[in-house]
Amino acid sequence: VVSGSFYPLDETAVLPYVASLPAVAAILGGSPSEWAAKEVGDGNINFVYIVEGPKGGVVVKQALPFVRCVGESWPLTQDRIKGEAEALIAHRKLDPDHVPEVYEWDEKMAVIVMQYLAPPHIILRRGLMAGTRYPRLAGDVAALMARTLFGTSALAVPSAEFRENVGRAVNTAMCSLTEQVIFTDPYFKAEHNHHTSPQLDAAAAALYEDTEAKLAAAELKVLFIEKTQALIHGDLHTGSFMCTQDSTQMIDPEFAYYGPIGFDVGAFLANMLLSFFSMDGWAGEADTRADFRAWELSVVRDVWEGFRSQFVALWSARVAAGGPGDEYAPALFGGEAAGGAAALAAAQDRYMQGVWEDTLGFAGAKMVRRIVGIAHVADLDEIPDADARAVCQGRALKFGRDLMVGRRGFKGIDDVIARAEAARSDGNKPFFA
Amino acid sequence: VVSGSFYPLDETAVLPYVASLPAVAAILGGSPSEWAAKEVGDGNINFVYIVEGPKGGVVVKQALPFVRCVGESWPLTQDRIKGEAEALIAHRKLDPDHVPEVYEWDEKMAVIVMQYLAPPHIILRRGLMAGTRYPRLAGDVAALMARTLFGTSALAVPSAEFRENVGRAVNTAMCSLTEQVIFTDPYFKAEHNHHTSPQLDAAAAALYEDTEAKLAAAELKVLFIEKTQALIHGDLHTGSFMCTQDSTQMIDPEFAYYGPIGFDVGAFLANMLLSFFSMDGWAGEADTRADFRAWELSVVRDVWEGFRSQFVALWSARVAAGGPGDEYAPALFGGEAAGGAAALAAAQDRYMQGVWEDTLGFAGAKMVRRIVGIAHVADLDEIPDADARAVCQGRALKFGRDLMVGRRGFKGIDDVIARAEAARSDGNKPFFA
Ligand SMILES: Nc1ncnc2c1ncn2[C@@H]1O[C@H](COP(=O)(O)OP(=O)(O)O)[C@@H](O)[C@H]1O
Ligand SMILES: Nc1ncnc2c1ncn2[C@@H]1O[C@H](COP(=O)(O)OP(=O)(O)O)[C@@H](O)[C@H]1O
Ligand SMILES: [Mg+2]
Ligand SMILES: [Mg+2]
Ligand SMILES: [Mg+2]
Ligand SMILES: [Mg+2]
Ligand SMILES: [Mg+2]
Repeated sequence: VVSGSFYPLDETAVLPYVASLPAVAAILGGSPSEWAAKEVGDGNINFVYIVEGPKGGVVVKQALPFVRCVGESWPLTQDRIKGEAEALIAHRKLDPDHVPEVYEWDEKMAVIVMQYLAPPHIILRRGLMAGTRYPRLAGDVAALMARTLFGTSALAVPSAEFRENVGRAVNTAMCSLTEQVIFTDPYFKAEHNHHTSPQLDAAAAALYEDTEAKLAAAELKVLFIEKTQALIHGDLHTGSFMCTQDSTQMIDPEFAYYGPIGFDVGAFLANMLLSFFSMDGWAGEADTRADFRAWELSVVRDVWEGFRSQFVALWSARVAAGGPGDEYAPALFGGEAAGGAAALAAAQDRYMQGVWEDTLGFAGAKMVRRIVGIAHVADLDEIPDADARAVCQGRALKFGRDLMVGRRGFKGIDDVIARAEAARSDGNKPFFA
Repeated sequence: VVSGSFYPLDETAVLPYVASLPAVAAILGGSPSEWAAKEVGDGNINFVYIVEGPKGGVVVKQALPFVRCVGESWPLTQDRIKGEAEALIAHRKLDPDHVPEVYEWDEKMAVIVMQYLAPPHIILRRGLMAGTRYPRLAGDVAALMARTLFGTSALAVPSAEFRENVGRAVNTAMCSLTEQVIFTDPYFKAEHNHHTSPQLDAAAAALYEDTEAKLAAAELKVLFIEKTQALIHGDLHTGSFMCTQDSTQMIDPEFAYYGPIGFDVGAFLANMLLSFFSMDGWAGEADTRADFRAWELSVVRDVWEGFRSQFVALWSARVAAGGPGDEYAPALFGGEAAGGAAALAAAQDRYMQGVWEDTLGFAGAKMVRRIVGIAHVADLDEIPDADARAVCQGRALKFGRDLMVGRRGFKGIDDVIARAEAARSDGNKPFFA
């Protein structure tokens, strides 16, 4: 796309804009006078338009030079849309089943035009809040994470190419934002922190003096800054998936950069667990959501187990094919190497143990920050009764803190699930058996 | 410097070349007819000229588009000289006492013109082989490493700037070389491997089936690829220092990139230990080198302890000053934060424990590769008697392997030293008490 200089779109201006893109116009069909646009952005940061024509629809996402929910007083580089476009393209190459297609990407306008995920696609978080189960969810998310995270790692990519990729995908401003709001602000009296008050005042204040929690958060921050393991999504919560009963699609990788794999896996598990802890705030005697909660925990289990086994399977296949990844060289770990198969199995166990500990640590950090940091989740924050909300949040906060601090001490995913169930059974109301 | 296109220098061509650089000509003094040049490169990779005039001297280092010791059949990017120049400049800013000044740096000619380290400056490895002690060595090396590695880390640099620095200092070709020759080739029958044969045939072959060694080497390779902790020298052996009784100078950072701190610290300790294990090959009843060996082990101890304490002191001072490093934020770990001082002390202990384990692992890997890989060290390889040489090398190989595999099991530097002494006492000759 060649265009002039940047201007902000709106529901009117977006029509001639897409009319100027022949490939997009062809998807919409008919003539511009038959098209309609609607702004639907519900995120905090950007503007998203659905444009529909007689033949089909597209989504137009534009990044303005500031944070949408705050306004011009919080400037943010429009480069973020470049990182998002490149990540969508890279990840779709690795998993076209679960990533929408980018039709056009316009650097000057800070715009991505992409595949429209039409209803009944809904943001997963909203589906979960409504108590909807998605039978494909766990399998699809596990496959997506295994394919994209393995496929962009130096296990799969020659290290020379990998190093160039790392350098190109630096996403400084977005990473700085993450560092601040996830790893630092929740652990002191930062300006934008908030929590359900006065119910959680003591719990929030306790964090400021919790040396173990600060140490864990700071160590995870070091990993976030230093561990360039794969091209991660960087914000893979339940608001970054759109789902139906038959489809699971990842959106919104504007925080993508080369970072620790556990950051993505942990984000997803954390948000499933936040939903789990929120359920008592939405349930009642008539609808206890007990089955739904059990299903949510099965997703936690199946996502981890599925991710783990598919990641390892992709890795084994890669080594068997002789490369080209440079970590764990086939010359040492391949079938032809002396003891190669046993060495590979041992290597995979140790590597996945590292991903596991990172996953739990980041999951915990992400739970904590959604209770006491700047940006919360609707699952919990929209619980109408403040006392009920605070009880649910308090459980999630305590569990998240313990997950983060104790990340090296969990025996496996069933142990995590058992401890989540125990954390919910704290003797307080609401609690629906 | 603006110059035409690249041409290779020689002892004649280097004179009009430096004459074209007014700042350099001024250092030399007099007129070009009074200057003399000599090629002194003893490394494997580049060409180094000393140019002297009536007033002073300079060193001109040029990178040709291939590896010097192999020739045009092994091409190597000339970009390496850019990484070297930028690292020399960055590290000299942080420690002008131990890094020579760059006078000019000419990208097109792939040339650095730098401060001449005049005699009695000698390459440290050669000094050690001659049995010369350097009273300032341990203190200077510790200070250099603490200042440059702390100073370029995200402990000291705001993470946004740090991320840009990481992206800019990608040194792909040199890193690929390291990955291959240190972490992969020694562990299978790679083309360029060699060792003292037949004496070490069995020991070399054993490595190819040593699952624990392969795993350790592969895990260290992952750290080398993924852990962007600080701007490291990347090749900090005893051939990368020039010393006198009063001066310790670091040269040759052409492998510099953002990598694990332990890679540099380990390189230095490994090469001191290789020298230690070589001593029995150079000693005799008349000169047992016992005192010298003890001094070498004191350097190992003092470098680690000095590095550790100065690194931590710089870190504490930085936090006390309120930043600007983004890891371990002053808001959580500073004196004003609740429990900040205790949290900082705990954080430093854990961080340095990580650096320690990396240091031992990389030190071990570097010892192994110098016995059975492509590039050896003169301390051992020049021992004239092949049987004596093989005994010394065999001890170093075994110790290096155990250091690498057991890197998480050493109690401290005194434990490392005690085990090095024990590894030397294997009941074989030569052994000079
Ligand atoms: N490809 C798409 N198809 C349909 N709806 C979309 C699509 N992408 C985004 N949306 C809608 O727009 C909202 C905001 O998009 P998102 O990419 O998450 O923006 P932000 O970066 O502001 O969070 C989503 O929650 C979803 O409702
Ligand atoms: N600044 C200097 N002053 C004096 N001699 C130097 C200087 N730099 C390099 N040399 C000499 O040149 C040799 C090769 O330099 P080095 O930078 O190590 O090149 P290479 O990259 O080929 O190993 C050194 O071993 C040393 O003898
Ligand atoms: Mg979003
Ligand atoms: Mg977003
Ligand atoms: Mg050299
Ligand atoms: Mg890294
Ligand atoms: Mg060199």
